[in-house]
Amino acid sequence: MKITMAHGSGGKSSAQLMSDIFGKYFKNEILDRMEDAAVLDVSGKIACSTDSFVVTPLIFSGGDIGKLCVCGTVNDLLMMGAVPKYITCGFIMEEGLETGLLDKIVESMARQAREAGVVIVAGDTKVIEGNGGLYINTTGIGEIPAGRNVSSSNCEPEDVVIVSGNLGDHHACILSHRMEIENHIKSDCAALNDVVDSLFENSINVKTMRDVTRGGLGTVLNEIADSSGCMIELNEESIPVDDEVRGFCDILGLDPLYMGNEGKMIAVVSGKDADKALEAIRNTKHGKNAEIIGTVKTGSGAYIKTRLGATRRFDVLYGEGLPRIC
Amino acid sequence: MKITMAHGSGGKSSAQLMSDIFGKYFKNEILDRMEDAAVLDVSGKIACSTDSFVVTPLIFSGGDIGKLCVCGTVNDLLMMGAVPKYITCGFIMEEGLETGLLDKIVESMARQAREAGVVIVAGDTKVIEGNGGLYINTTGIGEIPAGRNVSSSNCEPEDVVIVSGNLGDHHACILSHRMEIENHIKSDCAALNDVVDSLFENSINVKTMRDVTRGGLGTVLNEIADSSGCMIELNEESIPVDDEVRGFCDILGLDPLYMGNEGKMIAVVSGKDADKALEAIRNTKHGKNAEIIGTVKTGSGAYIKTRLGATRRFDVLYGEGLPRIC
Repeated sequence: MKITMAHGSGGKSSAQLMSDIFGKYFKNEILDRMEDAAVLDVSGKIACSTDSFVVTPLIFSGGDIGKLCVCGTVNDLLMMGAVPKYITCGFIMEEGLETGLLDKIVESMARQAREAGVVIVAGDTKVIEGNGGLYINTTGIGEIPAGRNVSSSNCEPEDVVIVSGNLGDHHACILSHRMEIENHIKSDCAALNDVVDSLFENSINVKTMRDVTRGGLGTVLNEIADSSGCMIELNEESIPVDDEVRGFCDILGLDPLYMGNEGKMIAVVSGKDADKALEAIRNTKHGKNAEIIGTVKTGSGAYIKTRLGATRRFDVLYGEGLPRIC
Repeated sequence: MKITMAHGSGGKSSAQLMSDIFGKYFKNEILDRMEDAAVLDVSGKIACSTDSFVVTPLIFSGGDIGKLCVCGTVNDLLMMGAVPKYITCGFIMEEGLETGLLDKIVESMARQAREAGVVIVAGDTKVIEGNGGLYINTTGIGEIPAGRNVSSSNCEPEDVVIVSGNLGDHHACILSHRMEIENHIKSDCAALNDVVDSLFENSINVKTMRDVTRGGLGTVLNEIADSSGCMIELNEESIPVDDEVRGFCDILGLDPLYMGNEGKMIAVVSGKDADKALEAIRNTKHGKNAEIIGTVKTGSGAYIKTRLGATRRFDVLYGEGLPRIC
């Protein structure tokens, strides 16, 4: 069966789709009430983040748009030191979307939400003309435990920059699909609860956390240097990249510094906690390949010490990147 | 200037667009922090609602997609008895979208947010291939004051149904644009803070509130009858419809019962509060044409007493309605 404009009417066809697919996987006490808005109990400071996902193809090696949107939003909440609690989803479906495909994506979304500890509390569906595409918006709400203060503006000289694992996998995976290149590269799409929890459980002095998505490490570090009024210096040799991804990049002239990831983050921590933090992260499922990749210094901008011993400044990504990577 | 794929890269072009258009109108203390998630102070029970907007045309008589998305989300929060506080927005822009048009829509969105008392706390932009279209997701958060308990399942026999004004305007307006019919019909697109406030300020015993959007009054009342386990009986003669809209409907064979609105709500209140509630609503800007249109009875389903004296059952909308009305 395919999605038609009638599924976007708000009438019987919409309700049918709701119970046949969304209800089947998303069923929970809050959604079951079918009100105009969900009623939630929260306390203290909350974090709130929104993201739209337009990735193509909808299903890729290592994930799909449903898994991706939950991970992306959960990670944004985690990066503020919040414990992710609730998520909303808005589906914009193009006419012609196969309901079998939609079913798989919704199932994957529900599974990832359970894994990441978030409850899907509100949703909306719309249908537009088109050719079977799908866009999903997710908005997340998390609670920030008292005493946590993580912000892009907190970095100070002598802090160190840790990356949670290999860079470039998601970007290389999506590009491989588009170019119909066969390889073993999988998207790193993952919710990073375990990595973040490991830092707080080990009482690490965490200054800043950022997931390394669209725009890549280069963009993220420039933004942090700017917000904190510091200089960040990377050591190119320590940046972890999987061998197959490295080969892929070499052939296509891609720089892992600007490639998007969906299950990688950087943490800037106090220099004295560096080794302890690295060990904590490496003991998690999603942080096995973590590395210390740089240091914060007095000054401004982002610099990289290259393999050849030179030091050069790098800027944020300019222009295209990879369209519709997330 | 037109939107290109580069504006969706997450790099310099994205940042430029952010400061040139979104920053100009949305600027506030929370957004200025430029973090992965907004940090908000809330207390007690909150309401949370999400909606995607795909209306076409993007600008119509009486509103535009920017005004519409704020009103739609604010109204969903209000219907749960919540005081709307925060809103997030996800923009999916098609390549070729005129930045001048985007500027107008973003300005309108910011103005409506100020009017409705909500702060825009998080945003996201993506670019997809296409032909200058725009889709917006908004998610809202509101605080529910202690003691309020509004729900679709609260209606009881002898309650009365009040509608806040004329039905069908938004639907007739969008359809007029599509059919290039010239008339004076304007969308009713509005945030209903004043109507809802008037009920609580006058200590009305409010059982249920619902905005009458996609699917129309017919769909909304069937859902409420179902949730509350009651019968709802409407009086066709009391349903307010503007004369020009009535004429438009007569010519095209449209039934205001199933037409979508964007600034109308129904309130089901205790029978003894009926007159007081009607007077309170009529004293507001958005409730001038309010009418008592029906009563809740023992039984099930939704019925209407027609102008000719017959009583017939009506169901939820089946099938198409008007595509892309909101």
